[in-house]
Amino acid sequence: MGKIRAGIVGYGNLGKSVEKIIGMQPDMELVGIFSRRAELDTDTPVFPVDEIAEHAEKVDVLYLCLGSATDIPEQAPQYAKFANTVDTYDNHRDVPRHRQVMDAAARESGHVALVSTGWDPGMFSLNRTLASAVLPNAQQHSFWGPGLSQGHSDAVRRIEGVKKGVQYTLPSEAGLEAARKGEAGDLDGKSAHKRQCWIVADEADRERIEKDIRTMPDYFVGYEVEVNFIDEATFDAEHNGMPHGGHVITTGDTGGFNHTVEYILKLDRNPDFTAAVQVAYGRAAHRMRELGQTGAFTVLEVAPYLISPTPLDELIARDV
Amino acid sequence: MGKIRAGIVGYGNLGKSVEKIIGMQPDMELVGIFSRRAELDTDTPVFPVDEIAEHAEKVDVLYLCLGSATDIPEQAPQYAKFANTVDTYDNHRDVPRHRQVMDAAARESGHVALVSTGWDPGMFSLNRTLASAVLPNAQQHSFWGPGLSQGHSDAVRRIEGVKKGVQYTLPSEAGLEAARKGEAGDLDGKSAHKRQCWIVADEADRERIEKDIRTMPDYFVGYEVEVNFIDEATFDAEHNGMPHGGHVITTGDTGGFNHTVEYILKLDRNPDFTAAVQVAYGRAAHRMRELGQTGAFTVLEVAPYLISPTPLDELIARDV
Repeated sequence: MGKIRAGIVGYGNLGKSVEKIIGMQPDMELVGIFSRRAELDTDTPVFPVDEIAEHAEKVDVLYLCLGSATDIPEQAPQYAKFANTVDTYDNHRDVPRHRQVMDAAARESGHVALVSTGWDPGMFSLNRTLASAVLPNAQQHSFWGPGLSQGHSDAVRRIEGVKKGVQYTLPSEAGLEAARKGEAGDLDGKSAHKRQCWIVADEADRERIEKDIRTMPDYFVGYEVEVNFIDEATFDAEHNGMPHGGHVITTGDTGGFNHTVEYILKLDRNPDFTAAVQVAYGRAAHRMRELGQTGAFTVLEVAPYLISPTPLDELIARDV
Repeated sequence: MGKIRAGIVGYGNLGKSVEKIIGMQPDMELVGIFSRRAELDTDTPVFPVDEIAEHAEKVDVLYLCLGSATDIPEQAPQYAKFANTVDTYDNHRDVPRHRQVMDAAARESGHVALVSTGWDPGMFSLNRTLASAVLPNAQQHSFWGPGLSQGHSDAVRRIEGVKKGVQYTLPSEAGLEAARKGEAGDLDGKSAHKRQCWIVADEADRERIEKDIRTMPDYFVGYEVEVNFIDEATFDAEHNGMPHGGHVITTGDTGGFNHTVEYILKLDRNPDFTAAVQVAYGRAAHRMRELGQTGAFTVLEVAPYLISPTPLDELIARDV
């Protein structure tokens, strides 16, 4: 059986991670990266993205490593014309519409489109569905972090006098404990999370910067906020990564007996793990197409064994 | 759409839990319990198990609540002749053979048989497959407990002078920590778990009982063992439950970056949670049959949305 031939569209953090992760798969080969830019800093063949139709025959699955804000909604249905696709579209509220549009495009061209893979949406979605399907009287909460928040870090860096700055989102310990006991009720995102800032700034600016952060509407007001000032050497050594993760906690009650299901991710590098999930679902896209399916699917619709490089009979002997 | 009509075979702890859990489902009704015994302490209709053929038309899914030691291997293929079945067969090494036998029986009669549901095998199997499919260079360890071990409790109670006794299996904290860091290597079951006993016995017997426990081959030798003597009132108040649970911990490495996936169960009542998973997979068995499938399937082969009472479009809007 030949290897699964993969292509990548887009070469930002996610595309670079997908390139690296494909290189770690026993059953995949990377045909090329499709980009608007003529030259990329990579040994992988690079093709102009508008010539993708000419290369479509060589690609079993196309990884769409594009932003969710505008690129995916505008471009993803076009790519579904040429190949099986996998995206990480993360605008949660818009997933039903996106799936519908991709379904139409993929059915018309006879392909499979796996939408909104990654970890949230993605592995967290799977765990939300599985745990709430199993547990009677389910109460469920998702927590994010500790993790770098790009948007909040940008907001902090726009404050006058901030030389360097990052913001991490952390789940509140009290929120986690309450959720594990089934006592978190309708705990909202603000009470469930804490915002922690690490800032490099001159001594004279610090008091004002801290006040500017704490009073920033939408971003910080209403949250528990922690502001730490550090020197530049410490910042450069300790705050140059992209860690993330989180918890999905579900409790249920079977007539006076409590049950807790908790799924935890601790990720050193957010785009690498997102890419690892996306790459695995590419395997499923290719296999589902081989099994005769077409259209768009979320992770909820994919039989789990389809994402593994290990054959089903070995998985049953090893994991069941 | 009518409710899914369920039947139960066997009325031990698991059968009683399945009866209770079916009563909590919005989309199921319990047609009856099939038993060798003429009378059971329940308001559910009871039918002789050897008359099951006469009732098969009324049942969409049959929950096999039978022991894995001999009942499932001997009887399960017979039941697959009459209806879609769901079992919790937990002899891990024998699952491939069991699936094969059930597959032949279910295909011949045109039914779906879901085998080895529950939590291990079951939800733990799912998590082992998903996490190791996603994480490059995966290292994976399963831990069980804190939980009541029936076999070890029986062994303790057979010791002369033991008036009452239970044994809990606990994961070792050091083992959990090492696994989370990807440093557990080939940690074996003995080093990963601790055995904790709670015993009621006369003062004069205690020293000998503790020695008998610690030197019992297979059951306790080689494990970290803790023996606690308590009075009968404390025992009756605190050790009459069937708690269980565990962890599946998987780490991976994406070129110098570490990622940890951890799935944790904390269950107040082991048979209730096993039943909750089994009941949910009955929904999938019925739906897969409606979709035209026949044969035997493990949890690895079932698309996750099929186990939920919530329609797919609502799940996508809510969980993805």
